[in-house]
Amino acid sequence: MVLYVVGLGLGDEKDITIKGLEAVKSSAKVYLEFYTSLLGGSTSVERMEAFYGKQLILADREFVESGCEGMLEESKTMDVSFLVVGDPFGATTHTDLIMRAKELNITVKIVHNASIMNAVGCCGLQLYTFGQTISMVFFTDTYKPDSFYDRVKSNRQAGLHTLCLLDIKVKEQTIENMLRGRKVYEPPRFMTVNQCAEQLLEIEDIRGEKVYDENTLCVGMARVGQDDQQVITGTMKELVSIDFGAPLHSFIICGDMHFHELDFFNSFRINKENKFAFINWLNAKQFEAIDWLNLKCGDQLLAQTHQPKLYGNTSAFQKIYKLLKSMNNNNQQEEEGLSQLFNIVETISP
Amino acid sequence: MVLYVVGLGLGDEKDITIKGLEAVKSSAKVYLEFYTSLLGGSTSVERMEAFYGKQLILADREFVESGCEGMLEESKTMDVSFLVVGDPFGATTHTDLIMRAKELNITVKIVHNASIMNAVGCCGLQLYTFGQTISMVFFTDTYKPDSFYDRVKSNRQAGLHTLCLLDIKVKEQTIENMLRGRKVYEPPRFMTVNQCAEQLLEIEDIRGEKVYDENTLCVGMARVGQDDQQVITGTMKELVSIDFGAPLHSFIICGDMHFHELDFFNSFRINKENKFAFINWLNAKQFEAIDWLNLKCGDQLLAQTHQPKLYGNTSAFQKIYKLLKSMNNNNQQEEEGLSQLFNIVETISP
Repeated sequence: MVLYVVGLGLGDEKDITIKGLEAVKSSAKVYLEFYTSLLGGSTSVERMEAFYGKQLILADREFVESGCEGMLEESKTMDVSFLVVGDPFGATTHTDLIMRAKELNITVKIVHNASIMNAVGCCGLQLYTFGQTISMVFFTDTYKPDSFYDRVKSNRQAGLHTLCLLDIKVKEQTIENMLRGRKVYEPPRFMTVNQCAEQLLEIEDIRGEKVYDENTLCVGMARVGQDDQQVITGTMKELVSIDFGAPLHSFIICGDMHFHELDFFNSFRINKENKFAFINWLNAKQFEAIDWLNLKCGDQLLAQTHQPKLYGNTSAFQKIYKLLKSMNNNNQQEEEGLSQLFNIVETISP
Repeated sequence: MVLYVVGLGLGDEKDITIKGLEAVKSSAKVYLEFYTSLLGGSTSVERMEAFYGKQLILADREFVESGCEGMLEESKTMDVSFLVVGDPFGATTHTDLIMRAKELNITVKIVHNASIMNAVGCCGLQLYTFGQTISMVFFTDTYKPDSFYDRVKSNRQAGLHTLCLLDIKVKEQTIENMLRGRKVYEPPRFMTVNQCAEQLLEIEDIRGEKVYDENTLCVGMARVGQDDQQVITGTMKELVSIDFGAPLHSFIICGDMHFHELDFFNSFRINKENKFAFINWLNAKQFEAIDWLNLKCGDQLLAQTHQPKLYGNTSAFQKIYKLLKSMNNNNQQEEEGLSQLFNIVETISP
């Protein structure tokens, strides 16, 4: 007898793999975990049941966190499928479940699928330049956990991107209802890109270690892997007020970007004309160049934050962007590039 | 007209999603990229063609790196599917292809799937505690690129795990054949876990910054996501000589492990009795405790490397492991735990 743990991917009922569908169809009982994530808006349990040809037993938070004892017991005498959104190893709770099943000598078969951890690649940032992932929970007046801040700091110091997984509150009780033992649940809540950006800035205000600021480049994403997926790039401040629509949302704080990554980034700008260019490549000469660009072009062209970057849509910007890109592609000498850059900016009237 | 870029996942022809299969079946032409990765050993192009009901056009390195111009042109007048092992955003070359298609105003639809970047979760290490991924290429006598070393260093300093993607050489020419313009290709080569461990140790020998050593805990993996997948954990030195069988192999250099991760790690030991326990949690008191354990137990119980760890199968080890685990689960005070640890070790006869 087998316990199949089947990843459903990120979209709808058709993102299951053939192997996963065969497991579901061959199982005597099929459970659907539905509190750590959710499939796309157009999908419903009824649609999934119709497509899979199976009745789904809903496994909520209580079910999973209390150990899924009944399901594990059943797995000893019949084939059982446990369906999870994304990949089976995306959430710690599922990993624990698999460990418990192993300890009970239950045969476990995993059917992998896409998870947000790899599907974020669709924004054009390379997966191997991400540092550790953080989780952002809903702040309250008295509860603002900021342990993520140190992880973002460590990532940014190494030039790495940070994926932020955003909080989901499903089947939560108010403290009053919990104390009174009333099984009354609050409506589900899903953190938005806007809330994440706000909370990030709030913690930077409190901690003040200049890990990032409102000019830091970020990516907001919604419904990744679904037909109406949305990717919008901008500064952290810009992302506070852009409407990304229905859940689930995800957030990325960019690290150093390669020019190929930057091309993608600029293609996802709301105002596509207003591009960004990094001058990371300047290395040792960077500070000299920045001082000088600042003197010459002022705030109109240069945002002097942790990652010095140029932005705008002036012809000066276009020229510099083109130069930086060609230098990056051809591995030209830093010295030579710097001198060309100086020549271009010399001709700019302030 | 649409260019579908379809992830095939990691196993065989049945790891495609329903959505992916529908895209393939509706396409006038179907290309299979087959040089950055490969599907499981039992799969063949013929089996895939039979299952998908489509003829596959093989896209090798030359095809992809020269820009897939013909395929992009076709996508303007017919639906085309481009199949890649894993997820479409796993390899930089595919990301570039998607960018080029966008620039040509071709409608691109992505069908996500599992990639090695998320499927490595099957070893029990949590995906959000991985740092940046590195690539390990085949060394030659004169070419031993070591830029990965700094990235491993940065990951390990932050306590993070490092996934190493191992080199694949498909359709490579010898320099002589290349110079003579002879299209004669060498047999494919796939880096093994053993070769990766050896090359890592070779670079540590040269660089000598004590980023890791032969006692560093690592995970060797083969054929992840396939039926005969293999996961074996051990020290870097142990993994030099364990046979993992057919490709593809992957390698992880462990960072700090949570006890839940350690449970998985120990369950994948070749010699399951010989477990490891970390004493990371000791924090400030760590060095005092290590000195003292060293004095009391010597090399038999304590491996004093970057991550001080206990190992073995003695009753003393079992007691300490149990204590550390219960402390970790209950968030007991460090002071109290340390004193209990001292009590246990006091009773050990050296």
